[in-house]
Amino acid sequence: MAVTMDVGALQGFLAQAFPQVAEDFVVEAVTADTLSVALRVDDRHLRPGGTVSGPTMFALADVAMYLMVLARIGPQALAVTTSCHIDFMRKPAAGVGMRAECRLLKLGRALAVGDVLLYSEGEAAPVARAALTYSIPPG
Amino acid sequence: MAVTMDVGALQGFLAQAFPQVAEDFVVEAVTADTLSVALRVDDRHLRPGGTVSGPTMFALADVAMYLMVLARIGPQALAVTTSCHIDFMRKPAAGVGMRAECRLLKLGRALAVGDVLLYSEGEAAPVARAALTYSIPPG
Amino acid sequence: MAVTMDVGALQGFLAQAFPQVAEDFVVEAVTADTLSVALRVDDRHLRPGGTVSGPTMFALADVAMYLMVLARIGPQALAVTTSCHIDFMRKPAAGVGMRAECRLLKLGRALAVGDVLLYSEGEAAPVARAALTYSIPPG
Amino acid sequence: MAVTMDVGALQGFLAQAFPQVAEDFVVEAVTADTLSVALRVDDRHLRPGGTVSGPTMFALADVAMYLMVLARIGPQALAVTTSCHIDFMRKPAAGVGMRAECRLLKLGRALAVGDVLLYSEGEAAPVARAALTYSIPPG
Repeated sequence: MAVTMDVGALQGFLAQAFPQVAEDFVVEAVTADTLSVALRVDDRHLRPGGTVSGPTMFALADVAMYLMVLARIGPQALAVTTSCHIDFMRKPAAGVGMRAECRLLKLGRALAVGDVLLYSEGEAAPVARAALTYSIPPG
Repeated sequence: MAVTMDVGALQGFLAQAFPQVAEDFVVEAVTADTLSVALRVDDRHLRPGGTVSGPTMFALADVAMYLMVLARIGPQALAVTTSCHIDFMRKPAAGVGMRAECRLLKLGRALAVGDVLLYSEGEAAPVARAALTYSIPPG
Repeated sequence: MAVTMDVGALQGFLAQAFPQVAEDFVVEAVTADTLSVALRVDDRHLRPGGTVSGPTMFALADVAMYLMVLARIGPQALAVTTSCHIDFMRKPAAGVGMRAECRLLKLGRALAVGDVLLYSEGEAAPVARAALTYSIPPG
Repeated sequence: MAVTMDVGALQGFLAQAFPQVAEDFVVEAVTADTLSVALRVDDRHLRPGGTVSGPTMFALADVAMYLMVLARIGPQALAVTTSCHIDFMRKPAAGVGMRAECRLLKLGRALAVGDVLLYSEGEAAPVARAALTYSIPPG
């Protein structure tokens, strides 16, 4: 269960495959079954009141799980989200970035399953929790 | 079970409360327990390959449920999403808009529950299905 | 999009493949994308207070989706639930049976997606809503 | 954030409030934000083939979260499940018990949110993952 792509390889893949959003996300750490990625918050990501919007949190959870899967199977852009369940538990802190902590629970031949917790930087209690499944293209 | 806000009132509320995204969404129809809203697709909404991105679909499902709740309880910007479960079933069609069809299943004092189906314009089979809950602020 | 198994064939399959629970469920109607099944409520299905328990509602939603899939693909006992999201919206009525109304949203080669609404007999408002996915064994 | 009910108090509460199922569940450990509970597998819990059934796994995840909430708020039988999202990831091992590991993510005034991983005894990889929310009755 080794990692196929490290932090640098994942960041490089994002820059190449998703240039329009790659600068929003900073891959921070990766192991065989965990991955951390930070969101550089920009005005585009905020809702009225200055907190990170729901769609932005969805995007952050989704990219965390996507990169977690790629870290294991390599740069296959065709891995796609099949489902995401997200619970919004606390209001994000205003004026700070966010961070996603992903945990891979299953990497099967056809399906990957993982959890993501989202945190406002500097806060101990998670803002949101997501449960995702990804479809993996046939090898 | 009458509607408190009609199509025009909902569109006006969006324009006032969420000016940065209001032009993306066109409220098309509302009844006591259904609501239709269309997404005007823009480059910002697309992923590589030209189809609507996951976060955009999340945003469309979320705004449909939000407007459905407001249609019944009136313009309370503080209604917030507590959970969203979304299944991505088919690839969206490229180069066309999307439409959300929301169905309200429960409007309680504290919680609202609904379903949303997302369609690419001109297609009969839904692209995604979402199950949402909203927290309603105390009256 | 024809139905491969009708009401009688589905009921017969249950009796043969799941004899210990088959008598709990009565298949009532099936079309290419809808299925109704009733639960004959027994003491085993109740929680203190006399209403249908959560696990029983889960079982009813699950069997409804399972039979919906089989109605289309034929008697393949190996179709398995991959996920179920269930929202409990109202307390079931005491002393009456329940009914599940399933709607098939996608039947792909590997995955089926559907919705189920659960009702207490005689009540118009649904007690629970479930969103399920099934994995379909390779043909 | 102290625990209000310890292992013995939780087990005693189950026996009193849910006598028909209390013997199925053995509370093993509890802290302020984690709880472990084992299922004593009986024929009633199995599906054809001898593995634990989906409704039984739902029941185990649900009781784990219920006891986790009670451990913090005390013996309030009226706490009710509002939603459960469950992913079935691996086939349970036959002929052995199961264990649920619950993690409490939020305990608000009205809503509690947690995760549960289910394991077959002796296996390292989880069989299922559940994400639950509970409604907490007003104090």
